[in-house]
Amino acid sequence: MNRTELIRQIKAKRSFLCVGLDTDITKIPAHLHAYEDPVFEFNRQIIEATADLCVAYKPNVAFYEGAGAAGWKSLQKTWEALPKDCLSIADAKRGDIGNTSKMYARAFFDQRHSGLGFDAVTVAPYMGSDSVRPFLEFDGKWVILLALTSNAGGLDFQTIKDGEGTMLFERVIQTANTWGNADNLMYVVGATRGEAFATVRKHAPHHFLLVPGVGAQGGSLSEVCEYGMNADCGLLVNATRSIIYAADGRDFAERARQEALALQREMERELLMRGII
Amino acid sequence: MNRTELIRQIKAKRSFLCVGLDTDITKIPAHLHAYEDPVFEFNRQIIEATADLCVAYKPNVAFYEGAGAAGWKSLQKTWEALPKDCLSIADAKRGDIGNTSKMYARAFFDQRHSGLGFDAVTVAPYMGSDSVRPFLEFDGKWVILLALTSNAGGLDFQTIKDGEGTMLFERVIQTANTWGNADNLMYVVGATRGEAFATVRKHAPHHFLLVPGVGAQGGSLSEVCEYGMNADCGLLVNATRSIIYAADGRDFAERARQEALALQREMERELLMRGII
Repeated sequence: MNRTELIRQIKAKRSFLCVGLDTDITKIPAHLHAYEDPVFEFNRQIIEATADLCVAYKPNVAFYEGAGAAGWKSLQKTWEALPKDCLSIADAKRGDIGNTSKMYARAFFDQRHSGLGFDAVTVAPYMGSDSVRPFLEFDGKWVILLALTSNAGGLDFQTIKDGEGTMLFERVIQTANTWGNADNLMYVVGATRGEAFATVRKHAPHHFLLVPGVGAQGGSLSEVCEYGMNADCGLLVNATRSIIYAADGRDFAERARQEALALQREMERELLMRGII
Repeated sequence: MNRTELIRQIKAKRSFLCVGLDTDITKIPAHLHAYEDPVFEFNRQIIEATADLCVAYKPNVAFYEGAGAAGWKSLQKTWEALPKDCLSIADAKRGDIGNTSKMYARAFFDQRHSGLGFDAVTVAPYMGSDSVRPFLEFDGKWVILLALTSNAGGLDFQTIKDGEGTMLFERVIQTANTWGNADNLMYVVGATRGEAFATVRKHAPHHFLLVPGVGAQGGSLSEVCEYGMNADCGLLVNATRSIIYAADGRDFAERARQEALALQREMERELLMRGII
């Protein structure tokens, strides 16, 4: 899905919600364990219940890899079940030397090799240019590069200042801007860093930002919009646990829908307030 | 495998060689394609031919993930085939927020969950403490944290100096030293950065270092030893392409053995020269 189509979906659905599919088999409703692939069945019902309210889905690969080859199959079936009008993001946070990153890019982008054909993959910047470029070489695909993450440890290194007072996450954005552009590169900026969005927008006014940390992690949607929204919206705000684990009974999908709907309505207000829709 | 046992193996085998198993199905000898799982058969023969010459094996997970669920099975069979007197390293370069890193740790360390029970996993530091600690919580397992990598892009961010002149990779080592210790934490330092080993050893005199970049990438073993070796050896030097792709005919395993043997002999000389054996 390209940038134009993504913006079109945001305006049509009046939403910039990304639903995280970090599906932990120990947290899903008990009755689903009767299915052959409980993780996939959970995802299938969540997707069915939320598809009209969000513009992206983001399975975190760790939750599938944790179950080995069987987990990889659940991931593949989940990817196949994602609606084509939603951006599909493999939250993998990969990054390795050039020839190896190329293998990772194939793993997530090239269905002929791996069975997976995600639109986007999250990538870690520590290993630099040749670890990121192989992902950018796939036509029509997106790299979503870690910049300023939502977790506590994000502050250990990402905000270290160089001799000129530029923080590491700023250097990452400045440098990566020379590798890709707003049509194939997004940045991860945690919602828990509201005040930092203005700094990020100085360096990346047009790029989309993937924003985790709203919901269970405590980030504020209105603050993210105030400092982070641009004329095209430019935000994909992710919520995971607050939606997919809203309830653990037979009504889990309906309750997930209610949570997604509440966020979509809040997002609609933000889009209207700024004249984007 | 704990530190004492690792040092014992190094002294017994007179080697600190790690063989990388980055097995690319397009590069293996044609006759292996007759096997049900050509990648595994290649690995099995490489392992059989080199097991007495090395102390560690390091499959890079990208090369398995690239083939989806089938690739994951090849990885599992490869892990099962690794000799117990060698350290098994999953070169995965993972790292995510706390609850997610825990899933990754299970994926590589906990056989009951994933079928894999590696001794060590490589981890990327960008997301900080809570992305690394879940791996360190597994008793008897190792984290091998990226510090200064061997690729060209390694210089994009890893050598940025803060206001006091400390480079990012030094900050990573200084900070991670407070999360783990020389019994459960190693650092990745590329052989292509010979001059940097002295700096690394200032911050981590006792830790083992995993050193990629000898062989195809052009790093010098004698330079690595001169600046990086400590009283316990403290080095695991990895070679991949120069060993596993030494030949592409029916003699590939024998030729891989010859390459491994040449490195082992060079390592033996380094160990003797410094009185470690």
